[in-house]
Amino acid sequence: MFAKRMDSLKVSDIREILKITANPQVISFAGGLPAPELFPIEEMKNVALTVLDEAGAEALQYSTTEGDMPLRKQIATRMKSKFNIHSTYENIQIISGSQQGLDLSGKLFIDEGDVVLCESPTYLAAISAFKAYGARFIEVSTDDNGMIIEELEKILESTSNIKLIYVIPDFQNPTGRTWSLERRKKFMSVTSRYEIPIIEDNPYGELRFEGERLPALKTFDTKGMVIFFSTFSKIFCPGLRIGWIVADQKFLEKYTLVKQGTDLHTSSMSQREISKFMELYDLDANVEKIKRVYKRRRDIMLETMKEEFPDSIKYTHPQGGLFLWVELPLYIKARDLLLRCLKDNVAFVPGDSFFPNGGVENTLRLNYSNMSEERIVEGIKRLAKVIKEYE
Amino acid sequence: MFAKRMDSLKVSDIREILKITANPQVISFAGGLPAPELFPIEEMKNVALTVLDEAGAEALQYSTTEGDMPLRKQIATRMKSKFNIHSTYENIQIISGSQQGLDLSGKLFIDEGDVVLCESPTYLAAISAFKAYGARFIEVSTDDNGMIIEELEKILESTSNIKLIYVIPDFQNPTGRTWSLERRKKFMSVTSRYEIPIIEDNPYGELRFEGERLPALKTFDTKGMVIFFSTFSKIFCPGLRIGWIVADQKFLEKYTLVKQGTDLHTSSMSQREISKFMELYDLDANVEKIKRVYKRRRDIMLETMKEEFPDSIKYTHPQGGLFLWVELPLYIKARDLLLRCLKDNVAFVPGDSFFPNGGVENTLRLNYSNMSEERIVEGIKRLAKVIKEYE
Repeated sequence: MFAKRMDSLKVSDIREILKITANPQVISFAGGLPAPELFPIEEMKNVALTVLDEAGAEALQYSTTEGDMPLRKQIATRMKSKFNIHSTYENIQIISGSQQGLDLSGKLFIDEGDVVLCESPTYLAAISAFKAYGARFIEVSTDDNGMIIEELEKILESTSNIKLIYVIPDFQNPTGRTWSLERRKKFMSVTSRYEIPIIEDNPYGELRFEGERLPALKTFDTKGMVIFFSTFSKIFCPGLRIGWIVADQKFLEKYTLVKQGTDLHTSSMSQREISKFMELYDLDANVEKIKRVYKRRRDIMLETMKEEFPDSIKYTHPQGGLFLWVELPLYIKARDLLLRCLKDNVAFVPGDSFFPNGGVENTLRLNYSNMSEERIVEGIKRLAKVIKEYE
Repeated sequence: MFAKRMDSLKVSDIREILKITANPQVISFAGGLPAPELFPIEEMKNVALTVLDEAGAEALQYSTTEGDMPLRKQIATRMKSKFNIHSTYENIQIISGSQQGLDLSGKLFIDEGDVVLCESPTYLAAISAFKAYGARFIEVSTDDNGMIIEELEKILESTSNIKLIYVIPDFQNPTGRTWSLERRKKFMSVTSRYEIPIIEDNPYGELRFEGERLPALKTFDTKGMVIFFSTFSKIFCPGLRIGWIVADQKFLEKYTLVKQGTDLHTSSMSQREISKFMELYDLDANVEKIKRVYKRRRDIMLETMKEEFPDSIKYTHPQGGLFLWVELPLYIKARDLLLRCLKDNVAFVPGDSFFPNGGVENTLRLNYSNMSEERIVEGIKRLAKVIKEYE
């Protein structure tokens, strides 16, 4: 009765684990949720009233598929100031969270059996979004500096029907790693020999706690092949479901076309609320507040891990974003570890979910944005205790 | 570079025409927009404040894919009271407007080349949603009482790979027609011999101006094969993009799975706002207000058509909803008529867009919900004048 693609779709581990962790006794490093105590609720009251006062009928009416013009213009301006990406509103498509950008990209580019090149590991929900269109994945190995370019080169040379390259160069989900400047340049140099669209997924780029900001791949994009995704979910709030695509018009008009059949347009009210917030308040100040809190949480997590974890455990030291990545000794399977940890009321996401072709069982992802410092310390201690039981 | 499906997708006529009709001098019967002057803007201010006061952090945070529980429960209750459909929250999936239900259904059921059975004509945006998944359409003829059951029977007997039956039995878009009780019963009797999912798309059912309410197909659904869609877009406001699916759990859990990869979840804030509106105010009273206004607009449109149109022009007399359907003499092509009408600043949608396999050129759709009575009279006069030039 169902389409063939349904055979390959399964329930997201993270979603299922999050259901268990709804129990408040569980200290969950599993999700990727922002800290809700930082949401500007009082400001949003004023914003909602102002939008309804000034243009209530428009905010509650059908709107254009491309998105509301003032917001598209504000985003184009922000793309310049934050990422040095030159664009106009005509390059901006508003989407219902950047997850929708992944779905629309699958619809736009992927036929059954086409190849998506991605980092190994990569973002879980990108895997399921592309799989729904029959994508196969070729994973390119990564290290602390990003994608291994020599491997990328070999795969590009030897593989036909690569339809898409999907990367997260800033504070990657799940590893928290950021690509070095050299890798970015080499990546763009190598890929520029091909006519393959590149999705640069960048939900976390503005959340840099320390170190130098590195240029987006899109700033090296002389052929207009980089499709840049971002979102208000991590720098503002996710519940309004507003993200955007920045792309050359040859791509943007196609995205608009597929979005039209997918959900007509993104909530007019939400678009106008975010636009009005940016007009009335200081989004940058909000981002600074988020960064301060997340930096402290990352610090306390890393400090506690240093104190509590056996030396055999390796982990990344992200300079921003929401996640870090743990590599266990090969004899510890992360799924087994999770089951034991849940008995002690602590949770994380086993890393194998982030490898589209599977096979890596000794990694896990930890989130530090959604938990108080005390809970982070307590949670890491619980996790360390269970890990030590394997020794 | 693009997926094969993109070859068959084209820009929606309605969207393109609506761009022209943004000019306020144009009297447009082309869209399907609700009357914005009826949106409860003052109430929405109170609703937004209350939601942010009572649960601001939750309203701005990520939420579950299924949708917020209180809203799902309210919808289940409303399905009983308005459509006599028995369900619990476990049968309700919240979606980003009922258009998303069409997209998710394509993803869930349609492989390249599969057949969708539909009314002839049918809803334009359903055609593009299903085409994106490679659907072929077989159109079943309709008359004033709905789908011709004998034809449906023959097609079902003689066609393999029918994956979906898509119908709009109440105040259909584009014709405004409503299926008779007898047709509903026969349709369910005939289709119950097959294991084919049936989408009953019902955005307009509550907007009945006169005549007896007829039971939803889903009330005759003994095998759990009817998937019922509805939306707040026509009974409340469309800008928040909130619709829902009512279905057996065997379907519902699959919808949840595909929605997860598509956009994670629908705006938490919008869901809570609608839920709070239904708690604090009387949605039924809002629906009554809408019905009174639309009935007057339909009446004045029909009266003016009766006075102004030549006798050779046939048109439907809808008992509710937003649209009526005009059949011109065969020698008048609606696309040609539209080009002439645009010079006189009046617009409509040519009917051929609503036939998935094309070929019918002498029909058009008129919308009466979005225009004042004066403008309706003036617009119909202009349209009649151009039509008379063909005589």
